[in-house]
Amino acid sequence: MPDTIPPDSVGIVTPQTHHFNEPLKLTSQRTLPHYDIIYETYGELNADHSNAILICHALSGDHHAAGYHSMDEKKPGWWDNCIGPGKPIDTSRFFVVSLNNLGGCKGSTGPVSINPETNKPYGPDFPMITVEDWVNSQARLADVLGIKQWAAVIGGSLGGMQALQWAIGYPDRLRHCIVIASAPKLSAQNIAFNEIARQAIMSDPTFYDGHYYEHDTVPKQGLMLARMLGHVTYLSDDSMKSKFGRELREGEIKFGFDVEFQVESYLRYQGEAFVNRFDANTYLLMTRALDYFDPASQHNGKLADALSLVKAKFLVMSFTSDWRFSPERSEEIVKALIDSRKSVSYVKIKANHGHDAFLMPIPHYDKVFSAYMQRIEI
Amino acid sequence: MPDTIPPDSVGIVTPQTHHFNEPLKLTSQRTLPHYDIIYETYGELNADHSNAILICHALSGDHHAAGYHSMDEKKPGWWDNCIGPGKPIDTSRFFVVSLNNLGGCKGSTGPVSINPETNKPYGPDFPMITVEDWVNSQARLADVLGIKQWAAVIGGSLGGMQALQWAIGYPDRLRHCIVIASAPKLSAQNIAFNEIARQAIMSDPTFYDGHYYEHDTVPKQGLMLARMLGHVTYLSDDSMKSKFGRELREGEIKFGFDVEFQVESYLRYQGEAFVNRFDANTYLLMTRALDYFDPASQHNGKLADALSLVKAKFLVMSFTSDWRFSPERSEEIVKALIDSRKSVSYVKIKANHGHDAFLMPIPHYDKVFSAYMQRIEI
Repeated sequence: MPDTIPPDSVGIVTPQTHHFNEPLKLTSQRTLPHYDIIYETYGELNADHSNAILICHALSGDHHAAGYHSMDEKKPGWWDNCIGPGKPIDTSRFFVVSLNNLGGCKGSTGPVSINPETNKPYGPDFPMITVEDWVNSQARLADVLGIKQWAAVIGGSLGGMQALQWAIGYPDRLRHCIVIASAPKLSAQNIAFNEIARQAIMSDPTFYDGHYYEHDTVPKQGLMLARMLGHVTYLSDDSMKSKFGRELREGEIKFGFDVEFQVESYLRYQGEAFVNRFDANTYLLMTRALDYFDPASQHNGKLADALSLVKAKFLVMSFTSDWRFSPERSEEIVKALIDSRKSVSYVKIKANHGHDAFLMPIPHYDKVFSAYMQRIEI
Repeated sequence: MPDTIPPDSVGIVTPQTHHFNEPLKLTSQRTLPHYDIIYETYGELNADHSNAILICHALSGDHHAAGYHSMDEKKPGWWDNCIGPGKPIDTSRFFVVSLNNLGGCKGSTGPVSINPETNKPYGPDFPMITVEDWVNSQARLADVLGIKQWAAVIGGSLGGMQALQWAIGYPDRLRHCIVIASAPKLSAQNIAFNEIARQAIMSDPTFYDGHYYEHDTVPKQGLMLARMLGHVTYLSDDSMKSKFGRELREGEIKFGFDVEFQVESYLRYQGEAFVNRFDANTYLLMTRALDYFDPASQHNGKLADALSLVKAKFLVMSFTSDWRFSPERSEEIVKALIDSRKSVSYVKIKANHGHDAFLMPIPHYDKVFSAYMQRIEI
């Protein structure tokens, strides 16, 4: 981190953990008997609790969305571009809540947590969690924080699916729903990429059917491959071209299978770094939650029908070069909202960063996002 | 195979092998002391040897491009759609040669062959082969067959790169060059996908640094993953949607990591089938040949300059939904040919099959391909 905290940062933040004793019934019909949720808050809750914003994280995200945990932390939270005083999610106006989802590996109850029935880590016995389950658990956190209605629920990618599910499942509990670089369900191609990532993890001999904690190891190669694959699909061909082109790491071809091109070196680095900060069982769970999400499936495939009870006003944003969650997928949500006579603003942002654009400081994105947020009454 | 051979099939074919005793100097500066090339031919060579066509295969292809090896063979060769009497590559007019490239695993010398220096399989010691090396070895096969000049050299994908290299490296030895669903060099994204596939293979614990033959095993999981990934990138999002959609294999969600969606089952099947017919070291070599190909690199990145001595007339074809070798990449070749004042016809074919389109029976493709081939004088 910089020597001084920048004036538009939320500054030093300290996560809090709430323990929930009431069992949570899950979509899979299994039950979590009790669980922890770790979260951070930025800004101040106003007197009538009308300025609260919920941030939902994506596949590999967590509760640490903005600011720094200490002066030693090198990088701020994952959405620091968008959260802070004067930023699109303006913490001088809003009270922002960001949590780690159930099944995560950053402090909320998940596969690395102790299973009370066995006194060993849950591992592969952790129940499958769906987007609906996350939203239900987030609603309980809202109760604890005294938030009857969010000014907005906001998320990108898998986080956008959670925001959408909030609007469907708790229509009275949010006024605005902001869905960024997301989709109403995964395509077969998306599922295929997830499946390859899962196979990479599950076929790693140190995976031990998910019981690797007990063997004091991690399925490093599998998780690395999963992350490398994810990473390529989050970038656009153009952004990779401008980032790496076909540059050789050592200036000339070596005719071997070690790193030759810069892009290979970058990918291996990304894969290795991920292994040190993420749990393989959590990765599996998160990809399945992505696969399963499909609110239209309970309405004969009609998304407009799934949205019929929605009350929130929507902002939907997509990015031109995002091929994992292309603008067409966002437009399916927009069309269904219009068909269902809901209020929706839609912006397709020109950006060559691929799916990762939603995390990037892009002036047009920042401007649109800020303008919408400023219009939210509190 | 059908009970009777269809009239537009080349029928039963028998591969032949030629042993080359003259050493082949490779781009890597290493030398293959001697080697075999396995090939098939379809049709008859005419008296003045002017009707010969060379087929160059792609990543996982081989010499068996058309017809059947026996009445028991279930499927014909990989390009049977395009090769046969009355088909675009009309064997009633042309004499067609199709070979397995060096480094392959179907009969030409490759990693599974015995290294004369050690009397063990080459394995990882097989020298790296480039597109230029393949073309040089193909030119020697042409010499053996008495073919001074090909009527056309034809290839799709990596095969298209070989066709392009023929036009550059042996300008007097081909009259037509047909480059389908190809590119003048891989993009960073393409290289990234190849790198993930290689990492999957090389990190498989049964890979043994490429010496798996000696351990009487194969890196099954790694090769499976590589193939699954390749497969997803050869299909388009649309074609996967129409093939599988989000269909569940057992009609309802099971909340687990076994196969849930049809697309997962398909991918696992494809991956497993590939392991039984392909060698992992060959896969590594072929992907590196793809990565390295970049004829413009010796001309300050100017493809038009690399093409300045070309004499062949070109037909370039691309497919709208091919995102691994997109139409824009074919158009780079077309533009460079035009800039270099060469003769080129270009057709972008509407098809939703992705990169695999070049192997598919698509009426417009068939029509354009046939029309061009019929104009070739013999």
